[in-house]
Amino acid sequence: MNNKITSLFNISFPIIQGGMIWNSGWKLASAVSNSGGLGLIGAGSMYPETFRKHIQKCKKATDQPFGVNLPMIYPQMDELINIILEENVKIVFTSAGNPKKYTDFFHKNDIKVAHVVPGVKFAIKAQDAGVDAIVAEGFEAGGHNGRDETTTFCLIPMIKKGIGIPLIAAGGIGTGKGMLAAMTLGADGVQMGSRFAASEEASSHTNFKNEIVSAKDDSTQLTLKDVTPVRLIKNKFYNEINEAIISGATPEQQKEILGRGRAKKGMFEGDLDEGELEIGQVAGLIDSIEPVGKIIEDIITDYKQALTSINSKKFNF
Amino acid sequence: MNNKITSLFNISFPIIQGGMIWNSGWKLASAVSNSGGLGLIGAGSMYPETFRKHIQKCKKATDQPFGVNLPMIYPQMDELINIILEENVKIVFTSAGNPKKYTDFFHKNDIKVAHVVPGVKFAIKAQDAGVDAIVAEGFEAGGHNGRDETTTFCLIPMIKKGIGIPLIAAGGIGTGKGMLAAMTLGADGVQMGSRFAASEEASSHTNFKNEIVSAKDDSTQLTLKDVTPVRLIKNKFYNEINEAIISGATPEQQKEILGRGRAKKGMFEGDLDEGELEIGQVAGLIDSIEPVGKIIEDIITDYKQALTSINSKKFNF
Repeated sequence: MNNKITSLFNISFPIIQGGMIWNSGWKLASAVSNSGGLGLIGAGSMYPETFRKHIQKCKKATDQPFGVNLPMIYPQMDELINIILEENVKIVFTSAGNPKKYTDFFHKNDIKVAHVVPGVKFAIKAQDAGVDAIVAEGFEAGGHNGRDETTTFCLIPMIKKGIGIPLIAAGGIGTGKGMLAAMTLGADGVQMGSRFAASEEASSHTNFKNEIVSAKDDSTQLTLKDVTPVRLIKNKFYNEINEAIISGATPEQQKEILGRGRAKKGMFEGDLDEGELEIGQVAGLIDSIEPVGKIIEDIITDYKQALTSINSKKFNF
Repeated sequence: MNNKITSLFNISFPIIQGGMIWNSGWKLASAVSNSGGLGLIGAGSMYPETFRKHIQKCKKATDQPFGVNLPMIYPQMDELINIILEENVKIVFTSAGNPKKYTDFFHKNDIKVAHVVPGVKFAIKAQDAGVDAIVAEGFEAGGHNGRDETTTFCLIPMIKKGIGIPLIAAGGIGTGKGMLAAMTLGADGVQMGSRFAASEEASSHTNFKNEIVSAKDDSTQLTLKDVTPVRLIKNKFYNEINEAIISGATPEQQKEILGRGRAKKGMFEGDLDEGELEIGQVAGLIDSIEPVGKIIEDIITDYKQALTSINSKKFNF
């Protein structure tokens, strides 16, 4: 295969499914891997033993490569890493921490590592740490996000210029056209979160999935910038935190309003008023909840159509 | 010609040069038009009689189509419109106001109208007003910007889905690869600002142009969100306003710190500390100040290379 991402992970299409908290369990990850992409189990919202069960179920549900997403701010990192070794997981996507900490260790255990970054200097640092691939995530992405607010359109070519290792674009990508555009900008493959959150196999609540389908271009906003920047659907909770920020609430006061368990409440329990609804701007392009197989088929069809279209006269000067 | 934008404006390449304040005088506009793109004179920073002189000089410097950018918050709109009619300008890009106000009037005078929008509902409103084309400007764009912070990667396909008239993508585009990516996402053409601000022909100060060349991916930020959102290079003035905002300054207090003439001071007089330096995130990709002819030649070469590359095996699944 000529594509760096399909070669690296031994998959058919360079499509990674983001390891989203409260969305990305074994059902979603195995469905994506069975459809030719790379499924990721999102460790961030799982207790260690839950995480182990999801890996075990995923192994039973697919014989294709799959991986896990590991936010390195997770309080029991050592336990998760032991489970990864014991369960023989061979692909780890790390985020939110220093890639130097575990990359060598993973490599010694024959595990491939991709690291998620929001800017050029972080990408160079990750490349220096020896990771196998970079995920460059733009401002439009859902959930937690960088402070510099660099968008996918700018971030991809800038990181491409700064690094030589395989590059995966994330943020704003939910269609085959988006995939082709990201690859035109310099990416070797794409990571999609929101598109797979609105799938039948995502473990999130139907209320949340329906909310993704209803979202428009102006439905999300990055907030909590002085705590941890996060992109949310503008629901009752968002409005509450936003008004507090406008009224001058300190980061401590914002944390108090946030409290604990808001993400679970919103995405897993389906409380659309009081929960955090983490989703990307691209939700505005998502019109239906579909099975993963159909989503990937549609993306590839759309990708091929976009490739044909871009070769038509309209684009020739 | 098969491209909607080259047909609409009778130009060779669907490349519009943004009508930026303090940057886009007759020299820049005529150079772009002479190189096969569409040059725009930026009325926003000109007194009416200065505006007239720039149009007159532009007409002498090129026999190709050119236009003007008209921010509809300009205090003496009637005077500018009279000048446009008297000087026989045939293309007007309007921004920052209601497109219903002048579109019919311009059409009756055989003037083509494009309107700049930051979101889907504004695009539909502009289409309903009868404009000939939409400029969809993403969050990464320099200068004044929308409140919903929708990025180019998301905005273009969403607006494409909502309207049928020609669509010009703006924000984050400074290369041929970017142009091809924007067109893959659904645009018929592109508007570039930052890339032309760093040209020999831009009327801005050399200090400002050098600052664009030095910019990295994290050099700009959108600020003054409660006054009028604007993307600036993070200089001394930006830091001052940013600290005031963090400390809870009201919009009124922010306006006081802003005062008057900051944009002129920064971009035209080259005061890199005290001035507003309005530029897009794509500045991080711009490495040199070039003559306009070379910039457009390079963009087209890069575009063609990107088109060849996208047809290579790496992109075939």
